[in-house]
Amino acid sequence: MFLGLDVLSSQLSSWKDKALFTPGPLTTSRSVKQAMLRDLGSRDAEFIGIVKDIRRKLVSLGAGAEEYTSILMQGSGTFGIEATLSSVIPQDGKLLILINGAYGKRILKIANIHRISTVELTFAENVQPDAETLERTLQSDPGITHVAVIHCETTTGIINPIEAYGRIVKQHNCTYIVDAMSSFGAYPIDLKACGIDFLISSSNKNIEGVPGFSFVLARRESLASTKGLARTLSLDLFAQWEGLEGDGQFRFTPPTHALLAFHQALLELEQEGGVSARGARYRKNHEMTLSAMQKMGFKPYLKPQDQGHIITSFHYPDHPNFNFQQFYERLSDKGHVIYPGKLSYADCFRIGHIGRLGVADVKSLLSAIAKTLVEMDIKISEKVEE
Amino acid sequence: MFLGLDVLSSQLSSWKDKALFTPGPLTTSRSVKQAMLRDLGSRDAEFIGIVKDIRRKLVSLGAGAEEYTSILMQGSGTFGIEATLSSVIPQDGKLLILINGAYGKRILKIANIHRISTVELTFAENVQPDAETLERTLQSDPGITHVAVIHCETTTGIINPIEAYGRIVKQHNCTYIVDAMSSFGAYPIDLKACGIDFLISSSNKNIEGVPGFSFVLARRESLASTKGLARTLSLDLFAQWEGLEGDGQFRFTPPTHALLAFHQALLELEQEGGVSARGARYRKNHEMTLSAMQKMGFKPYLKPQDQGHIITSFHYPDHPNFNFQQFYERLSDKGHVIYPGKLSYADCFRIGHIGRLGVADVKSLLSAIAKTLVEMDIKISEKVEE
Repeated sequence: MFLGLDVLSSQLSSWKDKALFTPGPLTTSRSVKQAMLRDLGSRDAEFIGIVKDIRRKLVSLGAGAEEYTSILMQGSGTFGIEATLSSVIPQDGKLLILINGAYGKRILKIANIHRISTVELTFAENVQPDAETLERTLQSDPGITHVAVIHCETTTGIINPIEAYGRIVKQHNCTYIVDAMSSFGAYPIDLKACGIDFLISSSNKNIEGVPGFSFVLARRESLASTKGLARTLSLDLFAQWEGLEGDGQFRFTPPTHALLAFHQALLELEQEGGVSARGARYRKNHEMTLSAMQKMGFKPYLKPQDQGHIITSFHYPDHPNFNFQQFYERLSDKGHVIYPGKLSYADCFRIGHIGRLGVADVKSLLSAIAKTLVEMDIKISEKVEE
Repeated sequence: MFLGLDVLSSQLSSWKDKALFTPGPLTTSRSVKQAMLRDLGSRDAEFIGIVKDIRRKLVSLGAGAEEYTSILMQGSGTFGIEATLSSVIPQDGKLLILINGAYGKRILKIANIHRISTVELTFAENVQPDAETLERTLQSDPGITHVAVIHCETTTGIINPIEAYGRIVKQHNCTYIVDAMSSFGAYPIDLKACGIDFLISSSNKNIEGVPGFSFVLARRESLASTKGLARTLSLDLFAQWEGLEGDGQFRFTPPTHALLAFHQALLELEQEGGVSARGARYRKNHEMTLSAMQKMGFKPYLKPQDQGHIITSFHYPDHPNFNFQQFYERLSDKGHVIYPGKLSYADCFRIGHIGRLGVADVKSLLSAIAKTLVEMDIKISEKVEE
């Protein structure tokens, strides 16, 4: 039974893994990772059954019922976004994009590459795109056929009001595309109430699976009219759906292990109490972090009413000893990985609240931050008065 | 220590997994899968180091030295093929494709979608594309800039002579693209000797990792001239390379767990004795299978000189009781998954020889096949005289 020792040693090394306070890949449960200790044939009945189950559960997470279907797409979340944009907008379509961060800009970039006509409405990173401007623009430009927006802009952590936009988009009979990459599974989203035609998210976000694929929840009627529109083979959303609906198989080799992990992750989401319970855990992570960080003197970037519980941006402290790279590495050395990199315009850093993390992990992070400030000889609390 | 039991139970279930005699996803080692029992941040130093190590080892497997570099691309092997075709052929380029199976046709399909001019040389599935026809075509059409071919056509298992083609391609100063999806790692390939500019393979083939990404080995000089040519964002080969060479990170979330598994798989490839030892194991799997199948009366589809040791196609036996679906399911019920599906033109089925399988597994498969023939009351051996 030499395998026993083998497992134990890999387990021990895993216990030492750093906690990931990032927007993903995230810390996942042990059992989600253990689900990958199998090799299933991608065309065999057991695997096909698992994929079917995943697809069904995803639709029900969005309360999509019969009106909606789901499509799994190999690659990261961006692959799912590009698959959608390049597969559902016809040559003569025109896409309006609401932009208030890097992921909105990425949609614009993808549209440009595929020579899709666009109208961009760009707002500051710390404000929600204005619904009235959206309405005015749709009124004045009847050529617009599609509208895209990010639900939670991971750039800052801001939550955009997708339901309010959706009402306007539908009044103008446009197709509504929502990038819910970092919100789906941690915010209740009613696809029908929001008027969403295509929603995109990924395996390694709030469902707490591992990275490897993205998924698209699509209104069947909207998807049906997109046959033949795709601009690529791999990212052809309709053809991918046809394959999954037909013989239940992926057209091209799927990430079988990531799908096994995801299947387990969906089960654990149910066990936790579904989207509302998971959202509540993340919200608690966020609130504990925000409150303790403010006590230490850090200032959040967003106004409270715009701030979501996925990720929080903090201004760099106004102190000569602060150096983000050092701060990051000292936290990492203590076993806590925050999000490296800064916002486009403001000197901020970000702490994620999602993944298999709870009160104890957050406490540990906060105490590591306090310790790091001491090590770096940074005293900011006394300088701050709100 | 409740985790111990947890691991044990998942281990027990894994022990029951069927052996995969397919072209992939494959049966992988326990330790390769165990390498996935970790969550690493995709922007953290440890992970960046692992990616760097993987990229270096891949180049050295192709004896590429300084002249070559490697690029990892999220998604399946087809994503890597499409990334290459849509990123390295300019608008005014013209691609000659040598076709003798489904994967050659897939290259044509991708080229058509991206409106790349093509010249197709199509041959029967059971013969190697003719080098003289290639030479004549390149001579008569100086507009051809790129040539693409499949090394091992998984459609049948035929091995195409990529080195012979390469000499001709280079004489005509064309860029040479080789789809080595199911051959790389089990056949020695000297990138320079073959004159290869771009070679594509994937994580779940002969390196014996799990599915999740493809990789491209590229001649640095050829890659350098492709900046800005890409027709997509996600599959932009040059930009992906720039990211990996720059800060060592993927542009978009990588399949971290599949990469950890692959890193371990590369180590195990070295431990086995490298490409030649692995190729020898697969060859033995192939030879045992072929010989026993012939004794049972099955006829191989390919001539011996064209047959590779990756996968073997057998004609359906000429017997009224034979039904492939039943045959497949009975083998599957006995714990052996062969490749479901048939060739484009001939009534054949396929048995793969790659993955973590050896003599004992092949014996077990062969005895299951013998037993299945009895169950189905098929006696073919007496009918066959070669």
